[in-house]
Amino acid sequence: MTSKHITLKNIKIDDPFWNGIIDLVRKEVIPYQYEALSDCVNGAEKSYCIENFKKAGAVVSALKKGETPPVYPVDKWQYTDDNCDENAFHGWVFQDSDVYKWLEAVGYSLTNHFDAELKNKADEIIDIICAAQLENGYLDTLYIINDREKCFTNLRDFHELYCFGHLAEGAVSYFNATGERKLLDAALRFADLICDTFGEDKIRGYGGHEIAELALVKLYEITGEKRYLDTAEFLVLERGKKPYYFDVEQGKKTTGEYYHYNQAHRPVKQQDEAVGHAVRAVYLYSGMADVAKYKNDAELYTACNNLWKNIENKKLYITGGIGSTVDGEAFTFDYDLPNDLAYSETCASIGLVFFARRMAELGVKSNYADVAERALYNAVLAGMSEDGKRFFYVNPLEVNPEASKRDSRKHHIKPVRQKWFACACCPPNLARLISSVGEYAYGENDDTFFVHQYIGADVKSKLGAVKITSSYTDDGRVEIIVSPNKKMKLALRIPSWCSGYELSHNCEISDGYAYIEIDGKTVVTARFNNEPRLVKCSNRVRANVGRAAVMKGAFVYCIESVDNGEDLQMLVLNKDAKFERQGEFLIADGKREKPCDSLYFDYSEADVTPCKIKLHPYYRWGNRGENEMCVYIRVE
Amino acid sequence: MTSKHITLKNIKIDDPFWNGIIDLVRKEVIPYQYEALSDCVNGAEKSYCIENFKKAGAVVSALKKGETPPVYPVDKWQYTDDNCDENAFHGWVFQDSDVYKWLEAVGYSLTNHFDAELKNKADEIIDIICAAQLENGYLDTLYIINDREKCFTNLRDFHELYCFGHLAEGAVSYFNATGERKLLDAALRFADLICDTFGEDKIRGYGGHEIAELALVKLYEITGEKRYLDTAEFLVLERGKKPYYFDVEQGKKTTGEYYHYNQAHRPVKQQDEAVGHAVRAVYLYSGMADVAKYKNDAELYTACNNLWKNIENKKLYITGGIGSTVDGEAFTFDYDLPNDLAYSETCASIGLVFFARRMAELGVKSNYADVAERALYNAVLAGMSEDGKRFFYVNPLEVNPEASKRDSRKHHIKPVRQKWFACACCPPNLARLISSVGEYAYGENDDTFFVHQYIGADVKSKLGAVKITSSYTDDGRVEIIVSPNKKMKLALRIPSWCSGYELSHNCEISDGYAYIEIDGKTVVTARFNNEPRLVKCSNRVRANVGRAAVMKGAFVYCIESVDNGEDLQMLVLNKDAKFERQGEFLIADGKREKPCDSLYFDYSEADVTPCKIKLHPYYRWGNRGENEMCVYIRVE
Repeated sequence: MTSKHITLKNIKIDDPFWNGIIDLVRKEVIPYQYEALSDCVNGAEKSYCIENFKKAGAVVSALKKGETPPVYPVDKWQYTDDNCDENAFHGWVFQDSDVYKWLEAVGYSLTNHFDAELKNKADEIIDIICAAQLENGYLDTLYIINDREKCFTNLRDFHELYCFGHLAEGAVSYFNATGERKLLDAALRFADLICDTFGEDKIRGYGGHEIAELALVKLYEITGEKRYLDTAEFLVLERGKKPYYFDVEQGKKTTGEYYHYNQAHRPVKQQDEAVGHAVRAVYLYSGMADVAKYKNDAELYTACNNLWKNIENKKLYITGGIGSTVDGEAFTFDYDLPNDLAYSETCASIGLVFFARRMAELGVKSNYADVAERALYNAVLAGMSEDGKRFFYVNPLEVNPEASKRDSRKHHIKPVRQKWFACACCPPNLARLISSVGEYAYGENDDTFFVHQYIGADVKSKLGAVKITSSYTDDGRVEIIVSPNKKMKLALRIPSWCSGYELSHNCEISDGYAYIEIDGKTVVTARFNNEPRLVKCSNRVRANVGRAAVMKGAFVYCIESVDNGEDLQMLVLNKDAKFERQGEFLIADGKREKPCDSLYFDYSEADVTPCKIKLHPYYRWGNRGENEMCVYIRVE
Repeated sequence: MTSKHITLKNIKIDDPFWNGIIDLVRKEVIPYQYEALSDCVNGAEKSYCIENFKKAGAVVSALKKGETPPVYPVDKWQYTDDNCDENAFHGWVFQDSDVYKWLEAVGYSLTNHFDAELKNKADEIIDIICAAQLENGYLDTLYIINDREKCFTNLRDFHELYCFGHLAEGAVSYFNATGERKLLDAALRFADLICDTFGEDKIRGYGGHEIAELALVKLYEITGEKRYLDTAEFLVLERGKKPYYFDVEQGKKTTGEYYHYNQAHRPVKQQDEAVGHAVRAVYLYSGMADVAKYKNDAELYTACNNLWKNIENKKLYITGGIGSTVDGEAFTFDYDLPNDLAYSETCASIGLVFFARRMAELGVKSNYADVAERALYNAVLAGMSEDGKRFFYVNPLEVNPEASKRDSRKHHIKPVRQKWFACACCPPNLARLISSVGEYAYGENDDTFFVHQYIGADVKSKLGAVKITSSYTDDGRVEIIVSPNKKMKLALRIPSWCSGYELSHNCEISDGYAYIEIDGKTVVTARFNNEPRLVKCSNRVRANVGRAAVMKGAFVYCIESVDNGEDLQMLVLNKDAKFERQGEFLIADGKREKPCDSLYFDYSEADVTPCKIKLHPYYRWGNRGENEMCVYIRVE
């Protein structure tokens, strides 16, 4: 059973939980990011993003006049005032991508809520971007400003194909929102150059940071141009073949061990374990799924399935986070899910949502949307503060602020969200996902409308109109009014977490979805039991034995010291605890150990006093100043 | 109450536990290290140590002939064939120290067991060393070979004062063993140069890696030359003053934050928290205690006390390990004692034994020897394999071999001991401590003989002969025959771990020691209850809540997967478990959880089966191939 997501222009979200978050992105995040990209935020590290495009535009003008612009080194990962000429490229090698992600978010936001002023700003920026494109279609400001001769000479480290991918995604979003082709045409010209440059009898390379694969498929979907799909397929299938292209371009011969980081250690069809940089991994896997779909490549689909299963069953935090180590921002090994050392990058969970949708489209099963839901309501939303002004890169499951300061192994674990980052992948990634969240919620095929995520909305399906009214995040209830064009089915995901549910209609259960026959306008109601519950983790995960987490519906809860006092490790939750709601909090019975002053002493039962333990949704943690936080609590 | 240790030549050890270990060092470790220092071990990384001395000797000859030897860079931390001229210095900047530590061990070993062949080898090496000394007394092969003009220009990083310290310690040991002055005179000449070079109106510097402080005091003790003590005091008290000398020599100005690593972030009298590189720290603190003693410096003693308490009460692993992070091989913060990320370097525990003896000599209290015992019987002895051929640098309390291989954060955690290292601090450090362990066991003052460690031996005290017969490590029994010259006291440490003890004589208890009046030949017997027991760790230590360790006497036990199957985290020990001895093992009742295949699931009691849990002394772990190990076990 395949399906296809509903595009954003056919979705009008109206949901008590999501309205506020989407508004926050529109009103706070997108405007703030515009200021940041333009280096207009006082006290923030400079982005240089727009400035680079302007410099590149000047180079392009000069070239058109037959002048010879100066050449600067292209040998750094970050270009600063300290290490480069003031006229050279500044910032990270992937700095261009920030504005593309912003434009992608703007496209979605304009679709949700048209805003002429915002569109004007975007159009001005699009003009600046397009003025920076070389005549041959090439568009990456690092090389255009610094050295035109060196394009595509360091695919492993210098993110040209990555920046192209974000350009294409931004362009598709903006075109879908406005119907205007300027940015899309620029992306297509760059895509044409890439198709001319990479392939069997051309450069046999691929990007060190994947995304071009899925982006080329997006261009194929919008244009029908088969060469985009073919080049996406080439980039996917060439990856990891011997001789390793990353060796070839560096003129050396390695064992390929290091290329685990880039998922380029072996051909992708032979990969069955998620490895390396987690964001890169899930972007690649998304592209693989896209290619498998349009090329009907069963082997590639099998590889996607194996990689998905490895993540879902062995490398997934309860919060939907992925990536257990800061070192390479990477996956480690099966069942290695440390709480206090987690990386769990916001972007990686966002990428996991991308991958999940593509897998669900290839074969609808509820576990894909279950995992996407786990990520969305926990690791993804935790990435943003409740005022939309601060962000987490890293989403640990246990935080001790003293450790973050005094233990260098935990410097990446921030106890409070940070302002805009110079290396700013997560905030604009959040903006684009949240602004387009509807595209992850509903799907359709020739006879079935799917509700993957219970987000309230008016949806125009080719099968008819569907109105979803949801208080799902609160009480697990949802009402769906279907006004079909013809006889059809409504497929509702049964969340894996619910112990029971009530459905107003008879249904057939298949792969975790309830299929209801719809013949004429129908009001379907459902209620999923979302009582708070204790959740255990496999005892193969060493960090969590003897502990449990608390969940309510899709939300993971945590304890914070602002509510429970310091030394959270001294708290023990009663295994039969009842949970009482108190606003956004849950209150449960437990006990607190008295602190032991002696470092070592003969065994005795801990001296405990009964106490109330106050739990807070994980995605809201860290909004009340620096404090300890913990997801897994000892249970007795 | 002060005391002074008994020197090795007055001790003849005969102990069922220690005889074998001391023999192993004599028969295996010392000969093997001789081969390694001489680059005669097939397949081992080259040491270059003796080779450097020969090269330096050639430079000295050339200088004497008025020639001008070539100059090579002195800018590296490790000099290899790849990064330096073949005629230049090779190895680590501190490579000289290896042979000095070896000579120190040889001195002790010759005292314990004279061996003419070994002495001949040592004498040949001493000739090579002494031939490398510059006319002014300077002796560090890196600078002698590479650049004579640069001596003492990078005290922070390049270990001249460190190598001097080991030279002095080796020279004292060899002189005490043989009465031969050649190496001692070389050490004194270098010491004289150091006294002439460093001081109030001279260079106001000190070593980045401490040890010169305690070494100068050893030279003072053996010569009575006050300038050695004064210079030791200068090095101690100058440390950490502003402007930071490490800034001065580098021509920069920093906040001093980085100098926590070298314990040079603030004047030592203001230091009350053990910080930075753990070996450097305890070497410094030992030197501080020495200076406090001979200079009667109460403030310095207070600082030593504060630092000691910080370690003992907040930064000490149950095994006597110190140093919680690989990053800088360093202390972190109070109660941060992770099991699977521990550094706990063998050398650091050895240095802690040094510090403990000095503190006990300044004021006898049993906690000093308790901590030394904890370190000796656990983290120190774990450093060496049972065949004396392989060594641990790092002594974790929990090991998963897969993590050691696949998680870069744990690459320092080795699941099996390694052969000789090029950076070879730990093996020779073990050799010198084990060969002189008697010096840490007994003490005396004007009227009391102290037994700090219950190691069987014939001891000649100025108060009379003392014969200790011990099966302490086995059944907690010890017999002490005192043949006094005059009325005296025998002071026996009451181990902090014993729940009860029997003494054949009346005694007075003071600061953890039982003081027994001795008037004429007396046979004292003692039995310390060393039944196996469960030990808890303060719940301020996050890693160990809900868990306990097993100890018997001073020995910490662990579980290994070779005895208990894989996935040690699935084992739970019964809180009222009885322990049965089975050879070197202990057997206790517990249960094993059935592995959970599902990563997340609603809470249910674990599915368990009763099982026997087999425990092994920690110091013997990892001798049966690569396997999991764990000290703290869940207890229910």
